[in-house]
Amino acid sequence: MGVLSEFYEDLQPDQRFELGSKTFDADYIKGFAAKYDPQSFHMDEEAAKKSHFGALCASGWQTISSWMRLYVDTNLADRAAREKNGEVLTELGVSPGIEQIKWMRPVYVGDEITYSQTIMSKRPLNSRPGWGLVMSMCEGVNQDGEMVLSFVSKSMVQTRV
Amino acid sequence: MGVLSEFYEDLQPDQRFELGSKTFDADYIKGFAAKYDPQSFHMDEEAAKKSHFGALCASGWQTISSWMRLYVDTNLADRAAREKNGEVLTELGVSPGIEQIKWMRPVYVGDEITYSQTIMSKRPLNSRPGWGLVMSMCEGVNQDGEMVLSFVSKSMVQTRV
Repeated sequence: MGVLSEFYEDLQPDQRFELGSKTFDADYIKGFAAKYDPQSFHMDEEAAKKSHFGALCASGWQTISSWMRLYVDTNLADRAAREKNGEVLTELGVSPGIEQIKWMRPVYVGDEITYSQTIMSKRPLNSRPGWGLVMSMCEGVNQDGEMVLSFVSKSMVQTRV
Repeated sequence: MGVLSEFYEDLQPDQRFELGSKTFDADYIKGFAAKYDPQSFHMDEEAAKKSHFGALCASGWQTISSWMRLYVDTNLADRAAREKNGEVLTELGVSPGIEQIKWMRPVYVGDEITYSQTIMSKRPLNSRPGWGLVMSMCEGVNQDGEMVLSFVSKSMVQTRV
């Protein structure tokens, strides 16, 4: 289940969606860094040892992009299952934005990050009949239960009527 | 010049850093989407035509990750030049986070996005002597002068003393 497959009426505060986990290996970390964040502590083990991070760690933008990947996978799988069941699918809305990204801890080689999304609030969009705005708290937690990422996501969600 | 190479005392509100431009071709857009945002309108021209975007366009996470790449390139080049001149380099600080990401318009195939960073405000960090917090407005503008991305970045910047 996911925000992209539910109608506005079916989403409620505190509803939680588990998005799955991703293990960050060195190749995965370096692959993103080479293209988007070539700072030495994301690219090279020896340089990372001498940095304030102390070891190779992922770009924060990869930590959050990996949330996005699992969010999309979860939602597309849910939509495909619903379509197979003959259910009416919601139209996909555009994201009006993201608030308050926090990277609490580095994600090091071998860390397994478990991602989730929890509905915080919702309101109808008077400016756009047939749609509502849903705010949710999105999180990533490592294998030791420590939070590494949080942010607030805004989603446009279609109403039933 | 860039925020990562200046000392806190040398950064002032309204100071603007030009980070350069990136042209988004179809391979670049699909390469990111395949790994981090495999929605059909970021992956396939035909599917994108039928979507609300009307044509293949970049994941918003790639638009912002591309800002990061040019930010890192600009700052690393500046730091290398200063080091060559025998200047004392600032220590690199951790980002306490990002606020208010907005994606105003899609980035389509062939769009050239020009990125910048403008200092908004700064304050000393009482909790961490020797460091200040700098807030800046980060933007991406397309070849038609239309803003496609903005967000507020928080940076920890070292003081001289």
